[in-house]
Amino acid sequence: MSGGETTRVWRSAAGAPPTAADDLLAGEEPLEIRVAGAPVSVTMRTPGHDRELAVGFLLSEGLIASRDDLADVRQAPGGALRNVIDVRLAPGVAVDLTHLTRHVFASSSCGLCGKATIEAVHRRLAPTTADAVVDAEVLLALPERLRAAQPDFARTGGLHAAGLFDTDGRLLLAREDIGRHNAVDKVLGVGLLDGSLPFGAHVLLVSGRASFEIVQKALAGGIPIVAAVSAPSSLAVSLAAESAQTLVGFLRPPHLNVYTRPDRIRFHD
Amino acid sequence: MSGGETTRVWRSAAGAPPTAADDLLAGEEPLEIRVAGAPVSVTMRTPGHDRELAVGFLLSEGLIASRDDLADVRQAPGGALRNVIDVRLAPGVAVDLTHLTRHVFASSSCGLCGKATIEAVHRRLAPTTADAVVDAEVLLALPERLRAAQPDFARTGGLHAAGLFDTDGRLLLAREDIGRHNAVDKVLGVGLLDGSLPFGAHVLLVSGRASFEIVQKALAGGIPIVAAVSAPSSLAVSLAAESAQTLVGFLRPPHLNVYTRPDRIRFHD
Repeated sequence: MSGGETTRVWRSAAGAPPTAADDLLAGEEPLEIRVAGAPVSVTMRTPGHDRELAVGFLLSEGLIASRDDLADVRQAPGGALRNVIDVRLAPGVAVDLTHLTRHVFASSSCGLCGKATIEAVHRRLAPTTADAVVDAEVLLALPERLRAAQPDFARTGGLHAAGLFDTDGRLLLAREDIGRHNAVDKVLGVGLLDGSLPFGAHVLLVSGRASFEIVQKALAGGIPIVAAVSAPSSLAVSLAAESAQTLVGFLRPPHLNVYTRPDRIRFHD
Repeated sequence: MSGGETTRVWRSAAGAPPTAADDLLAGEEPLEIRVAGAPVSVTMRTPGHDRELAVGFLLSEGLIASRDDLADVRQAPGGALRNVIDVRLAPGVAVDLTHLTRHVFASSSCGLCGKATIEAVHRRLAPTTADAVVDAEVLLALPERLRAAQPDFARTGGLHAAGLFDTDGRLLLAREDIGRHNAVDKVLGVGLLDGSLPFGAHVLLVSGRASFEIVQKALAGGIPIVAAVSAPSSLAVSLAAESAQTLVGFLRPPHLNVYTRPDRIRFHD
C-alpha cells in the first residue's frame, strides 16, 4: 500500500481554538496508462499496485482479455516516469482505443440510455454462467474481514477498498485506493497477471456504493456475486440483472439486501 | 431531483430467508455533453439538472469561463436525445478540447506528478484572493442542513450531495448525484447560468471525501472555503494550500479538522 503523506492539521472541538497535530493523508497522484507507448488514460489514484491497476483497467475497458495479450508491463522505479505505466502487447494483439467505455457513444433505439450502455457492455462481455453459491452468514462476515485488511483506511479514513473472497468467506485479495473503481481494477489486475482469472467462484465486496462501473468491472473479471456495503444505483441493478450476476447491497450485519439473482445465496431458517 | 427507479429487493436479517419488498434506487444514466455538436464527454450521472451539470463541467474543465461564453444550452425534453446536452458557444468563443483535464499530459521537471497537475490547474485558474471568514460554529451546523436538503438520499441512501452556503450558514443551493463531482458541477452550473459566479463569499460542503477534483472545481467557481464530511486526499490538501483555499475535513460535529488556511475560520474560547 502507498504510504500517503503526513500533513499538519488543526483540530477543533465544539468551535474552540484548534490544536495543531500531524495527520496522515490518503495518497492521490495521477497515473498515466500507455498502451504501446500511446497514452490512453490519466486517472487519479493512490500510488501502489500500479501495474495491477493498469492491466485491470485495460481488462475492464475491454482492451485486453487475458495475460496472453501482454508482452510486458513497465513502470520506472522512480523519477519522472514513476507515474507512467506502459503496457506492451503481445505480437499480433491489436487494440481499438475507440472501445474505451467512457467514450463509446452508444447507439440503439433509445439513443443514449442505460439500455444502450448495457448493450454496449454485452457486445464484449457475456453474462456469467457461474453457479457459485454462498451462505448468507458468510456474506455477513465479509465487511469486517475487509475492514481488518485495510491498514491505510484505519490510518487515513480516506480509502475505499475492494476485496475478493471465495464462497467460504476466505479473503483472497484486498486492495485500497481513493477511487473505488481503481481498487476493483487492482484486484482484477492481480488475477490477470497471475492467470487466475476468471473469478467464477468468487465474491467481490466493495466498501462503498455499487455503481454501473463496479458491476461492469466485476463482469469483466467473471465474478458472479458482487456485494456492496452501501446502496447500488439503478443502472448497477439493471446491468447485474441482465448479466446474471447476484448483487447484494447495504451489506451491514445483521442485514443485507439482495437486488438480483438471490438463488446464489443460501439462507437459513 | 430525479425520481430514481423502484425495484424489487429481497431483505434478510441474520441470514434468515428473505422477504420481498420495494426499494427506491438512486438513478444512474449516461449523459453525453456536446460542444457545438461535438461530443466531449460521457459521464454517468443522476438525471436532473442536466444543463447545470453540463455547463458546470465545462467551467471546471476550463472550456468556458462565464455565461457570456454561451449562446445556448439545449436538451431534448425526452426521447432519443434526452441524455444529450448540446452547448452552443457565443460567436467568437473557441474552445480547445485538448484542455480537458483528464487528458492533459502534464509536463514539468517531475514528468507526471501532483506538482505538475497543480501547475496545470494554475495555468488557467488563479489562487483565490477572497477574504471570507466563517465561524467554526457555523461550519459545524452545515452537515445537518445539507442532509435536511437531501430528500433523495433519505429515500435511496445512494446519493452524494454538494451544498453552497453563505458565511452565515444559509444554504443557497443543494444538488444530489451518484457522483460527488457531478453534484459540485451542478452547483457551479447554477452560478454560471444565473451569473452569480464567482462564489467568493461562500462555503462549499460535500457529503463525502474531498479529492483533488473537488478542490479544483471549487477553485473554478471561485470558492475560498471547501468542507468535506470525510477525509481529504493528499493532492486535495496540496492544491488547496497552493490555491489559498481553506480546506476543512472530517466535519463531524462537534469536531472538525482544518488542513489549509485556518485564518478564514473564527474560533471561540
